[in-house]
Amino acid sequence: MKALVFHGPGQTSWQDVPDPSVKDAADAIVRVDAVTICGTDLHIVKGDVPEVAPGRILGHEAVGTVVETGGDVRTVRPGDRVLISCISACGRCRFCREARYGQCRGGGGWVLGHTIDGTQAEYVRVPFADLSVHPLPAALPDHEAVLLADIFPTSYEVGVLNGGVRPGDTVVVVGAGPIGLAAIATAQLYSPFRIIAVDLAASRLAAARELGADATAGAREEPERLVQDLTDGLGADVVIEAVGVPEAFEMCTRMVRPGGRVANIGVHGKPAVLHLEDLWIKDVTLTTGLVDTHSTPLLLRMMAAGRLPGADMVTHRFALDQMAEAYDVFTRAADTGALKVVLGGAQHDAVAVPAGRA
Amino acid sequence: MKALVFHGPGQTSWQDVPDPSVKDAADAIVRVDAVTICGTDLHIVKGDVPEVAPGRILGHEAVGTVVETGGDVRTVRPGDRVLISCISACGRCRFCREARYGQCRGGGGWVLGHTIDGTQAEYVRVPFADLSVHPLPAALPDHEAVLLADIFPTSYEVGVLNGGVRPGDTVVVVGAGPIGLAAIATAQLYSPFRIIAVDLAASRLAAARELGADATAGAREEPERLVQDLTDGLGADVVIEAVGVPEAFEMCTRMVRPGGRVANIGVHGKPAVLHLEDLWIKDVTLTTGLVDTHSTPLLLRMMAAGRLPGADMVTHRFALDQMAEAYDVFTRAADTGALKVVLGGAQHDAVAVPAGRA
Amino acid sequence: MKALVFHGPGQTSWQDVPDPSVKDAADAIVRVDAVTICGTDLHIVKGDVPEVAPGRILGHEAVGTVVETGGDVRTVRPGDRVLISCISACGRCRFCREARYGQCRGGGGWVLGHTIDGTQAEYVRVPFADLSVHPLPAALPDHEAVLLADIFPTSYEVGVLNGGVRPGDTVVVVGAGPIGLAAIATAQLYSPFRIIAVDLAASRLAAARELGADATAGAREEPERLVQDLTDGLGADVVIEAVGVPEAFEMCTRMVRPGGRVANIGVHGKPAVLHLEDLWIKDVTLTTGLVDTHSTPLLLRMMAAGRLPGADMVTHRFALDQMAEAYDVFTRAADTGALKVVLGGAQHDAVAVPAGRA
Amino acid sequence: MKALVFHGPGQTSWQDVPDPSVKDAADAIVRVDAVTICGTDLHIVKGDVPEVAPGRILGHEAVGTVVETGGDVRTVRPGDRVLISCISACGRCRFCREARYGQCRGGGGWVLGHTIDGTQAEYVRVPFADLSVHPLPAALPDHEAVLLADIFPTSYEVGVLNGGVRPGDTVVVVGAGPIGLAAIATAQLYSPFRIIAVDLAASRLAAARELGADATAGAREEPERLVQDLTDGLGADVVIEAVGVPEAFEMCTRMVRPGGRVANIGVHGKPAVLHLEDLWIKDVTLTTGLVDTHSTPLLLRMMAAGRLPGADMVTHRFALDQMAEAYDVFTRAADTGALKVVLGGAQHDAVAVPAGRA
Repeated sequence: MKALVFHGPGQTSWQDVPDPSVKDAADAIVRVDAVTICGTDLHIVKGDVPEVAPGRILGHEAVGTVVETGGDVRTVRPGDRVLISCISACGRCRFCREARYGQCRGGGGWVLGHTIDGTQAEYVRVPFADLSVHPLPAALPDHEAVLLADIFPTSYEVGVLNGGVRPGDTVVVVGAGPIGLAAIATAQLYSPFRIIAVDLAASRLAAARELGADATAGAREEPERLVQDLTDGLGADVVIEAVGVPEAFEMCTRMVRPGGRVANIGVHGKPAVLHLEDLWIKDVTLTTGLVDTHSTPLLLRMMAAGRLPGADMVTHRFALDQMAEAYDVFTRAADTGALKVVLGGAQHDAVAVPAGRA
Repeated sequence: MKALVFHGPGQTSWQDVPDPSVKDAADAIVRVDAVTICGTDLHIVKGDVPEVAPGRILGHEAVGTVVETGGDVRTVRPGDRVLISCISACGRCRFCREARYGQCRGGGGWVLGHTIDGTQAEYVRVPFADLSVHPLPAALPDHEAVLLADIFPTSYEVGVLNGGVRPGDTVVVVGAGPIGLAAIATAQLYSPFRIIAVDLAASRLAAARELGADATAGAREEPERLVQDLTDGLGADVVIEAVGVPEAFEMCTRMVRPGGRVANIGVHGKPAVLHLEDLWIKDVTLTTGLVDTHSTPLLLRMMAAGRLPGADMVTHRFALDQMAEAYDVFTRAADTGALKVVLGGAQHDAVAVPAGRA
Repeated sequence: MKALVFHGPGQTSWQDVPDPSVKDAADAIVRVDAVTICGTDLHIVKGDVPEVAPGRILGHEAVGTVVETGGDVRTVRPGDRVLISCISACGRCRFCREARYGQCRGGGGWVLGHTIDGTQAEYVRVPFADLSVHPLPAALPDHEAVLLADIFPTSYEVGVLNGGVRPGDTVVVVGAGPIGLAAIATAQLYSPFRIIAVDLAASRLAAARELGADATAGAREEPERLVQDLTDGLGADVVIEAVGVPEAFEMCTRMVRPGGRVANIGVHGKPAVLHLEDLWIKDVTLTTGLVDTHSTPLLLRMMAAGRLPGADMVTHRFALDQMAEAYDVFTRAADTGALKVVLGGAQHDAVAVPAGRA
Repeated sequence: MKALVFHGPGQTSWQDVPDPSVKDAADAIVRVDAVTICGTDLHIVKGDVPEVAPGRILGHEAVGTVVETGGDVRTVRPGDRVLISCISACGRCRFCREARYGQCRGGGGWVLGHTIDGTQAEYVRVPFADLSVHPLPAALPDHEAVLLADIFPTSYEVGVLNGGVRPGDTVVVVGAGPIGLAAIATAQLYSPFRIIAVDLAASRLAAARELGADATAGAREEPERLVQDLTDGLGADVVIEAVGVPEAFEMCTRMVRPGGRVANIGVHGKPAVLHLEDLWIKDVTLTTGLVDTHSTPLLLRMMAAGRLPGADMVTHRFALDQMAEAYDVFTRAADTGALKVVLGGAQHDAVAVPAGRA
């Protein structure tokens, strides 16, 4: 089959590789129908994630069709159309028993496209299939469903739930890339009073407003003053970091009100300064975390019912073998305006792609 | 009356001052029967707390007897023996309505010995008396009750409750001064599996063991390795910072397990480094906060029933007018072994002071 | 002044009575601008609430203007336009300190129109004014704001919050009178997947659909089967009882799924049968409660922002002195289609009353 | 092998039956080393549980040694000494994913000795072994460990956790049989202020005091007055029903304070009267439930550390083939004083059986 193989920093190729096969009775082999590219994949390609060894097939998000299952798989069977979650779960370890699948100690967690071969391929082996794929309703098109593999559960669990968003809250989302936008979308499930989006790019702030942000501020346009002004100087109830750089995190800790929460979603490569000399007295809660995808069934039901935006976040569509073009467009997001790019998935589409999008 | 007046960095005197009087209908005037000194008082004396103006009477912890009340005070009256909480509460602002009294916006919060005259005096004016003092049962001696003014609720609320200690947990308490020791004592209300105390001083670790720590480590003796060894390499469920220096806080963030919590109690004067490059993926919750003293009635009932240690933490006793000696002994705690020093309070004592203690 | 006085079962009159005056330093005297009638008032008039003594002025919901305050009132002053909450709060007792104002032991709780004179009058004395009235934004008209005195916080706290509604839930509301309709409206703050309304009256089910119910069932049309059909036989996540008769409560306990919650809002006069032989194994949580009105500031902000329906629930408007007519229309709700009737309030209205409504 | 077979109401025999064998790849075959009898078993023998078909081997609690495992079992292997939980868990259904194993929809839940053959036998087939057995530390003797199969997790989860016991609470436990006594023992993990036990039998109240109850009342000696007296007329914070008859449940609902919780553990065969005319206004939470055994690893660790009583509850010991004698002693508990009877288990005992106990 064809797959996107990582050959070391800066080097990938869409090439022939052996087809995957069932190695463990809990495995499923899934034909990839639609796949997307994550910001994390770009980090891997740059060489920032040393656990990813050369020869690895990348990708941890996909929609596909089960073609084979090991003897221990009970909940899906060949022919089933499924979402492949970015997180696999052994279901037996102490963390899986608490639905904290992202911290699985039994061979799961984030493994696809990381420590085992991933989804940017024609076929993929999914371990622990019973707890790692989700059957999809026919009405949900591939290019929307694929967003449930990572960005929707990540933004909801690590941002909205860790942030403890409640009705009436003022919520600030710092970073309006795909994850931040999905946080804006999913925060609305808890009816905050106001969502304020902060980003460097005007185009992303426009997308934030379309997805429900009530106010926006350019990252260099005094976003802290805006938050102060809108909250009578108190600060926001919940601040969600969806960037992954120290400056953004530090700004979040200045924007939060006494008694409020800062939920970090961003993937960080460097330490931040935590101003405990200000914060020790301020009753602040800070959270970090990897997604567990325990919320995927809920989000799937809500998206299928039209209660979550999906298509709005997909700016570009490609065929599966246009992997190089898709990476190029996604890598140059500042120029191309890319939010999420989706490869494949056409055959299941029930909705039209908006004009002006690929 | 006599009171301890702050005259600027390094300068205090026990001197004559005017008696306090009712200024607001919610005030109570309380005769101070017993008072203690807080680590924060030492910071003020050094000049680290610029909000404290010269001329201010210090102290925010006391037991006393009500001598006069304003017309709006309904729950105590002259003659009542009361605990004076370190936190005053207006009872009307949004924070007080959530029992987050430490963040009171209506004139309360930590004001005694800070922005208004405090308790290291023969008499003190307590604002918002209804929500700021607590009637004491006769059986609870002054020198124990005074510990409920600050260190017990602080360690319980900001350490144990913010830390979310649960039955079966491994809890690490970094810093075994009075606050850390009180955290060790109050954590046991939730039946953790094991409490590990970390401190520089062997004498404090001995006190930690007496108060219920199951294991101890010198701060320079590889405490992180001990935690790893005792938790199969996973880390502690809850880590409580009770020091207030960056190194201690940073150690806490390395000791916590995935999914665990770090509760900061320490008063910090400098920023710490937050290693988000390690923590972003680790499902960690960090909390900070000032005490609210919402738990004081509970802790008072438990201490009165002998369910919390009190006397064990009082190492030195003085008469009220021995303020200078008491400050000296407490300032030189490393030499004197002082944990809490109590001034006054003799007349109510039902228990003997252990031999060898002042 | 004029007021509606209860003279014993079946007997009320709109008559001259002495003006109220400040009796306690925490009191406010409020001129009543708009008032409504509660189902509970009808029970009182029938004689079902023996604590209400003849001579009592009825009513516990109003919007008005402060005309005088006692010396201890700090947060409102004459001229302020305020919502009078159905619950008064001393702010000092153990229940008030937990924001459980409905259970106030210090002289508050539900007292207006119950154990002290109420709001169906030209003026009313409100005890503990600081915690018992809420300043109103100018933009919120009286006839909407008055719904925040009781039915909105009651349905939200006792129904939605006690019921623990979460995103994606199936919620059943049994009883589509004013309280049930407000539960349908406020449940949407938590984005349930589906709200099912059950009532005897088709007109109320129509109102339920207008306010956001996704499905409705006549109480005699197999509502249990509808719930089973819509939940794959599992039952609803949350069932809210908003009727107050045993049959309705018992139906609720049959409609809830394993692990679900039944939240009772209804005012009951008779015991119900609890089928523990079925329920003991079923992981069900049942809650009861009187409103605390701790959520009033939140709901007020949301209604002022147009995020909660108000006017939709007001079917009839009267002048304040049309008290007899208003009681008549509200008592004959089955015939008149009355949901909430509002007396007074015209002068502040910024919105038109819909055509066809009084 | 030998096993206790149910032959219809009143009829059981310890007889030869075929050895069990692996039927599903997730099964384990376990040699039973120690087993106990549950009150539920007595109900089954009487014919009260019609789902139990004649021919069924009874028993749902045991300690044993794994002798064979199916190909899908990953966490235990032949030779491992394990606790067999009364609840089996498929690990895949929506309830198992929430750790609500008792409600498993995938073939688990309470099945042993109920819908499949149970543990009162020399060998037993345990389905879904990975999530249904727990490896045991060598130091924990069989006759204590077997109490972790049902009564300890049941009393802790359905009583203490559902009841929300918190430090400082007054807790009433109605019924001081094995489950009630285990509730008294496990409630102490949350440091209540006071535990009050209620039972008909003086011997059980004596056992309650030994296990930590602070006060006791005969069920016919005005227990409600005792609760009122000890709580200043307010009622208990938490009331746990551990009997299973309507009168006991109804008494619980009268004993609870406003804002308190009633947690039902009792297995009920008849409906109770719920006095909603009193309770609707009282802010009460009532819970029911079957155990999930999610707490078993925690309780196991605590018991192994000597933090929970085990041996104290075992009043009679028998050999495995003395099944008839053991049932007889347990059935006549009122005469024999039996709390828990344990069959087998001698070989692992590290502790002596107290004198005067079989």
